[in-house]
Amino acid sequence: MDPTGYRVHAANVGIKDETLDFLVVASDRVATVAATFTRSLFAGPSVVVSREVAATGHARAVVVVSKNANVATGEAGLADARELQSRTAALIGVPADEVLVASTGVIGRRYPIDRIRSHLDAVEWPSAAEATFDDAATAIMTTDTRAKVARTTIGDGPAQLVGIAKGVGMIEPDMATLLTFLFTDAEVGTEVLDPAFRRVVDRTFNSLSIDTDTSTSDPAMVMANGAAGPVGPDELEEALERVALELVRMIASDGEGATKRSEVTVTGGRDDAQSKRVAKAVVNSPLVKTAVHGADPNWGRIAMAVGKCREDTDVRADRVAICIGGVEMYPAIADEAALDKAAAHMRQHVVEIDVDLGIGPGRATVYGCDLSDGYIRINADYTT
Amino acid sequence: MDPTGYRVHAANVGIKDETLDFLVVASDRVATVAATFTRSLFAGPSVVVSREVAATGHARAVVVVSKNANVATGEAGLADARELQSRTAALIGVPADEVLVASTGVIGRRYPIDRIRSHLDAVEWPSAAEATFDDAATAIMTTDTRAKVARTTIGDGPAQLVGIAKGVGMIEPDMATLLTFLFTDAEVGTEVLDPAFRRVVDRTFNSLSIDTDTSTSDPAMVMANGAAGPVGPDELEEALERVALELVRMIASDGEGATKRSEVTVTGGRDDAQSKRVAKAVVNSPLVKTAVHGADPNWGRIAMAVGKCREDTDVRADRVAICIGGVEMYPAIADEAALDKAAAHMRQHVVEIDVDLGIGPGRATVYGCDLSDGYIRINADYTT
Repeated sequence: MDPTGYRVHAANVGIKDETLDFLVVASDRVATVAATFTRSLFAGPSVVVSREVAATGHARAVVVVSKNANVATGEAGLADARELQSRTAALIGVPADEVLVASTGVIGRRYPIDRIRSHLDAVEWPSAAEATFDDAATAIMTTDTRAKVARTTIGDGPAQLVGIAKGVGMIEPDMATLLTFLFTDAEVGTEVLDPAFRRVVDRTFNSLSIDTDTSTSDPAMVMANGAAGPVGPDELEEALERVALELVRMIASDGEGATKRSEVTVTGGRDDAQSKRVAKAVVNSPLVKTAVHGADPNWGRIAMAVGKCREDTDVRADRVAICIGGVEMYPAIADEAALDKAAAHMRQHVVEIDVDLGIGPGRATVYGCDLSDGYIRINADYTT
Repeated sequence: MDPTGYRVHAANVGIKDETLDFLVVASDRVATVAATFTRSLFAGPSVVVSREVAATGHARAVVVVSKNANVATGEAGLADARELQSRTAALIGVPADEVLVASTGVIGRRYPIDRIRSHLDAVEWPSAAEATFDDAATAIMTTDTRAKVARTTIGDGPAQLVGIAKGVGMIEPDMATLLTFLFTDAEVGTEVLDPAFRRVVDRTFNSLSIDTDTSTSDPAMVMANGAAGPVGPDELEEALERVALELVRMIASDGEGATKRSEVTVTGGRDDAQSKRVAKAVVNSPLVKTAVHGADPNWGRIAMAVGKCREDTDVRADRVAICIGGVEMYPAIADEAALDKAAAHMRQHVVEIDVDLGIGPGRATVYGCDLSDGYIRINADYTT
């Protein structure tokens, strides 16, 4: 079931081809908003504009253009983003500063702004806003092969939460995230929603890496319009995490060229931050990723990846333990039977790698995927 | 011409297959030594043992085992390394602490130490030491497709310098390097050789990245035995840099699966360190690497890679300039003609990317390669 009080408009305005590329999700009433954004130094105008809106803690709608990121487009690109914001606001009859803006796609090209203008002049509101959240998830795709939607009930209800996300490449969020929008009809204030959402993003989207590259366009946003009444803060955070984690796993499985998902858990770190840093080094290593692809239990590459975390000088090789699929590889050096068990695990869709650092209570799980020929093909050909 | 006063023994001892896998280079007299090593926390016993020798500033020989890195092999592996050192020293009749040790190959397996013992017991010295430096370069190869040797004369001579190197994957040295050995008959003290070599390594091997992974085994060493008499310090450093840079370019061109070399120069940094950090982000980005592979002038990915250097908060998108093959892509946004010129450049073997940050006098050039299907195939299959 979807949250009540939202209208969805999904359309093609001809950004690149004839697929859906334009989305508006509007709330019937003013919603509480929390959002995190990319920390890229080349963050695009959409991020600039949305940061202003998110800072107020409230919004009425979000408009998304896909297949064009509107990044590195200078003053003209910023003007385009503001025009997109104000025209969308006019269409649905709200102030411009209550409309969030997001974009994704190729960098360094201006929008075909005439097509956006023509579309917004012609469309009827609210009769054109009868689309579903599944349509919304489709409208924000670029090289994604599958739409990504996750739903849950907050506590025992009646409040509902739905999340949509896109992104298969240029993904190492790290304090930001890819294009992600969560909508709920729960009633919750900014002072509860904002910190809960940041904690959840840190454990989910910021623990995801497809290819170490950080997008210039990433927002993660949640809107709560209150139509279903109040919810408990713990139930809210649990629901946010369920939906976010489900989206993260969908994104990792749909990583560009991915044939498998990897989940790397590092325990025994000095603190959670150290565990996460080491886990990221493992999940991001091209040699570990290709070993996952080839179902090769070459645990030496995992040791190598731990070893390259050179700032973590308290990590000592003689206290580290490495498991693949629960089978110990090191320090009790894996024999043929253990390697065979690990290889069998690695032929499954989800590959679990566990590292214990033997230092302290720190713990983190990160999500990634293998590196295959498909990644090369997609990215050597995509663009221009 | 090769430096005088060195003997080379290259052999197969059956580490993995029937190719050359065992090398001893010995100097007729005690040589001055300078060396840098990997900073991996999982550095292997070869690194531990060689650090002790290099710390004295002098050595007589280096012994190298290829196809087995002897890493993550615990106390037994350390004992194997010390036995390799002492038996080699006994063979050539020098103290054990004058023999450097290096290894490269699979991680997490002990040497077939019996085979090494049998070989060293059977070999005759110096009659078995008639190999060339080209043989030496071949003996240290693992997945390399080509042996890597570079030679130069120091100043006007007579002192000669030869360098050999191996390494095509698990290469982002960063304060260390891959397996590299330079030999000269110049006469030079440690106080001159050591700082000159460190500066050269920083500008060459530490400016090279194939795949962001840092080996557990890397040394870069230079031996100077003085047989040809004294040389000027500037001439020495120039010669070291010529040979090191030639080896670096060979390594980048022979990167696993590489079809092209990339050279990224970042000017206008706050300092050289910032320029190098940004250049590394560009050369290492999988999206830039696949664009280089596909000869796609998708300069937005270069902007993205600059933007992900989030600690460099003084980098501002409106002061950055990006060129491919000398053709401006940004901020004067590339038109079709400019994109065509850049694409033509990218179809050549060496792809030059230039970024200016517009902040200060900092400058750095780094060396890398494209990312192709070949990298996946080599690394999804290699090992176990």
